[in-house]
Amino acid sequence: VDSASGTTAEAPDEGRGAAHVDTRTRDLAARVRAGDRRALARALSIVERADASSQALISLLFPHTGRAHLIGVTGVGGVGKSSLIARLVVEWRRRGKRVGIVAVDPTSAATGGALLGDRVRMEELFADPGVFVRSMATRGAGGGLARATIDATRVFDAAGYDVVVVETIGVGQDQLDVGQVAETIVVVEAPNLGDDVQALKAGLREIADLYAVNKADAGSADRTVATLRAMLALEGERDWNPPIVKTSAATGEGITELADAAETHLAWLGRERRAARRRERARAELRRLLEERLLRDLLARVGDPDLTTAATAVLAGTDPYRCVSDLLRRYHG
Amino acid sequence: VDSASGTTAEAPDEGRGAAHVDTRTRDLAARVRAGDRRALARALSIVERADASSQALISLLFPHTGRAHLIGVTGVGGVGKSSLIARLVVEWRRRGKRVGIVAVDPTSAATGGALLGDRVRMEELFADPGVFVRSMATRGAGGGLARATIDATRVFDAAGYDVVVVETIGVGQDQLDVGQVAETIVVVEAPNLGDDVQALKAGLREIADLYAVNKADAGSADRTVATLRAMLALEGERDWNPPIVKTSAATGEGITELADAAETHLAWLGRERRAARRRERARAELRRLLEERLLRDLLARVGDPDLTTAATAVLAGTDPYRCVSDLLRRYHG
Repeated sequence: VDSASGTTAEAPDEGRGAAHVDTRTRDLAARVRAGDRRALARALSIVERADASSQALISLLFPHTGRAHLIGVTGVGGVGKSSLIARLVVEWRRRGKRVGIVAVDPTSAATGGALLGDRVRMEELFADPGVFVRSMATRGAGGGLARATIDATRVFDAAGYDVVVVETIGVGQDQLDVGQVAETIVVVEAPNLGDDVQALKAGLREIADLYAVNKADAGSADRTVATLRAMLALEGERDWNPPIVKTSAATGEGITELADAAETHLAWLGRERRAARRRERARAELRRLLEERLLRDLLARVGDPDLTTAATAVLAGTDPYRCVSDLLRRYHG
Repeated sequence: VDSASGTTAEAPDEGRGAAHVDTRTRDLAARVRAGDRRALARALSIVERADASSQALISLLFPHTGRAHLIGVTGVGGVGKSSLIARLVVEWRRRGKRVGIVAVDPTSAATGGALLGDRVRMEELFADPGVFVRSMATRGAGGGLARATIDATRVFDAAGYDVVVVETIGVGQDQLDVGQVAETIVVVEAPNLGDDVQALKAGLREIADLYAVNKADAGSADRTVATLRAMLALEGERDWNPPIVKTSAATGEGITELADAAETHLAWLGRERRAARRRERARAELRRLLEERLLRDLLARVGDPDLTTAATAVLAGTDPYRCVSDLLRRYHG
């Protein structure tokens, strides 16, 4: 229709996404950018599918991303991430920022009740048009959730949200590496009885830009802060020394400080470090996409039955490395 | 040298692993199978590298695997997995079983002290030749650790160990899906103050074959058991209803019961279900190996600089899906 315009002047090409996207998708993208909440909800549902239609949509929105501050909030279950985020949102709103939240829920429908309950309360709390909360369900193993989450942050970003929060339990089977979607990572820790710092045991230390020791009202928070501080001190000075903020979703303690710390981190990142990190994330994403596409192309050719045959060979004692070499030989000719 | 033997009669072929493995690797594999502990240690170091030499070794050992009971022990940090395993090992030894342990350590060198300390104690405890403990370090993102862990269980299996335990925190950045390496999965939970069941929040419910509510001596264990039982009851009857065992590494409570439950689960799996699960694992592994190999082949051709160029294009506003299509087009022709 508008093939004379600059963006669609390219030759139609299966792989080139945006070049021949249908009108409905173009309309949707325009409405998302204009701040239409219903369009936003629909766009998020589309990216959740992580299929060809989500790619077309992202192709249109992608050039308009890169403005939002992408914040990951992670920590093991039970540390109070959702209520901490709810408090932060109030603070961000006070600062005039629009906030989008992608809550990655690794639990299934059956056990998700409690978590979803939190989120429903969160959504009630924020009938505010400057806030939008979206839960992403995990689906099976693999890349679908990671892809959906990354693209959801892009939808928010293109829709003009200033802060996009990805809340993830950072645990287990969900395969979402929060470092792939966030530029400032807040690791939330709750005080506990022993000397254990769950986040450290969970391997979250390497990715933490800020620590929030939550449930500060619970008593033993100082001890947890001290343990954390001692462990960080062992590592010596770094370019960025992650601040440790004592927070309480119950009393509101430390929320302003935490929001400040996130802004300080963003300022510290600056233009150059942000670009460098974005480049690293882009490289990682391209590698993953290439893997997915290459495997899909191969399976379209050697066929799923061949994979079953190969699996049977493995059961019969042929090692998987050999089976893969055999499959690749067949594929390449 | 021994090219007249049956196994080496095939044409030399880059992809066919075992066919032209050097004599040292053959010697090593033979010594592993004969139960030589030093060879076992060396073989585990080789598979930890997850490179071509580990593939050659696994090609030799693979046909001799499939006998061990592969048990995953998982749960969030601080629930006492290591000490529970130590107790289980004593029980298994009492039952005449040889036990190999692969401890997957998601923490880095700096914070790994505490965990490694546990393991060192564990290794001291078991100067017993029927027990072998090996820690695997995480390295970067991605498949290396999963590959190393799977292959480590194969080394133990081929070496004649009856039980192979994979201890994993099942958390965060390590990308190891314990379902990919174990046939019986024990989810360890510790009593805590609230109604939270960490394992459920961590998305471990879907994979649990058995629950161990550890630190039974700590008091509130009954409440955790009740919560867990109530949540499982919501799901109704299943083919296999995961038993919940109250355990204490301190007093030894429930250890015999837990070892029994693991045996019951293995018996329930039986020949057919075990084969079906093994086939599923094989399919998943083949897919992952194919992805890795396909990407490696592509990068060998389009080159890493092209990936950097593509990442730069992403930074400039070209969406990743289009960049990938461009790279694939260049690759294929």
